[in-house]
Amino acid sequence: MENSETPYPVRKKYRIKRIAKRAHYDKADVNAIIDASYLCHISFTQNNQPSAIPMACWRDGLYIYFHSANKGRLSNQLVGNSVCISIALFDGLVLGHSAFNHSYNYRSVVIHGQVEEVADEPDKEAAMRTFMEHILPGRWSDIRPVSQKELRAITVMRVKLEQVAGKIRDEFPDDETDTPNWPTWIGVIPSITKFHAADADPSRNKVGAPPSYIVEYTGIDGRLRPNKKK
Amino acid sequence: MENSETPYPVRKKYRIKRIAKRAHYDKADVNAIIDASYLCHISFTQNNQPSAIPMACWRDGLYIYFHSANKGRLSNQLVGNSVCISIALFDGLVLGHSAFNHSYNYRSVVIHGQVEEVADEPDKEAAMRTFMEHILPGRWSDIRPVSQKELRAITVMRVKLEQVAGKIRDEFPDDETDTPNWPTWIGVIPSITKFHAADADPSRNKVGAPPSYIVEYTGIDGRLRPNKKK
Repeated sequence: MENSETPYPVRKKYRIKRIAKRAHYDKADVNAIIDASYLCHISFTQNNQPSAIPMACWRDGLYIYFHSANKGRLSNQLVGNSVCISIALFDGLVLGHSAFNHSYNYRSVVIHGQVEEVADEPDKEAAMRTFMEHILPGRWSDIRPVSQKELRAITVMRVKLEQVAGKIRDEFPDDETDTPNWPTWIGVIPSITKFHAADADPSRNKVGAPPSYIVEYTGIDGRLRPNKKK
Repeated sequence: MENSETPYPVRKKYRIKRIAKRAHYDKADVNAIIDASYLCHISFTQNNQPSAIPMACWRDGLYIYFHSANKGRLSNQLVGNSVCISIALFDGLVLGHSAFNHSYNYRSVVIHGQVEEVADEPDKEAAMRTFMEHILPGRWSDIRPVSQKELRAITVMRVKLEQVAGKIRDEFPDDETDTPNWPTWIGVIPSITKFHAADADPSRNKVGAPPSYIVEYTGIDGRLRPNKKK
């Protein structure tokens, strides 16, 4: 059972050592970062050599999900094996007194675990629905239902969220002790992922104006960051 | 010598098999994706287990660079070893007829190589200058020069760009053959990284309004995507 009150049970091996004050292990904090993401980077080992690939991802309860072509090279490589999943949201430039006091503001998560396949078709369909509702709420009920052929064409995979470490920097620059009065501008240039007006496919769109869930879309991060300054 | 006319000499092992029509190996195409990025994800192998970490990155000629605390756990782990570097820029949601015709538009790069240290101090300083000019042109001449102490506090690393594969999706949804007339909106919701107004540190900023290179900043991607639709 999910208990959002307890932190992720991260072993010492996977805890954050570098600037540990920025580490987050509480489920609410870490899940909010995963839930604000469209993409993750999945790394794996082949013949003791590292490989990695960017993939779409989404969370449901205490699992992070992703999918690929069924029985393809990638799913064959991943299912049953260890992976490390890295997520980073870029939140802006941090401008300090010297080059070394410059930084980024960001939210990141690193997850270690074993990949399991979600094989049953009802579970696969439920996972795809959760994915769609994560990315664009309202879309699922507006599209043609998935077919059995389509479900069979993909492999849905998941990793249990146990060895999970989040890291957040959301601050002005670090202190400058050498030349605190150097005459340069000190602060942050915040950034977001912004969506432009929807662009209809001229040859295939069969309806007129886009529905409100598309017109009013501000991104999953926009919905999930009510307390972010600016 | 860099020759931007020849493609990256990617071995068969690292060439893209899945949807190969989206693969890019030309230096100009791949370098443009690296140059539009603030972040990469560096994966490596420890005891045959995968690990990964998000890091700031920048390119100079035929190398991709990154840095970390000097002689820290990470730099000790990386220098001299194999890594895989994954970059992805999220360019929007692709909305098709069924869940399976939904996708993202994106630009991605995956790089395999060995990490070498940039050890000489003049080279480290030059690398930090290139980094800063990549992220925020005009900033380097406006800040306090780096000190020898600061240079010694970091390890600058690089990977030669040889095994490099780019992938770009910048299209409307894939064809729908089952129900092409399903009454739903078909198209793309494009996205960009957008910067808000700069936010001065109230206690430490010693100058008035931010300079023009900050006020007019639209992001490295904004400068490098003149041909992107919308």
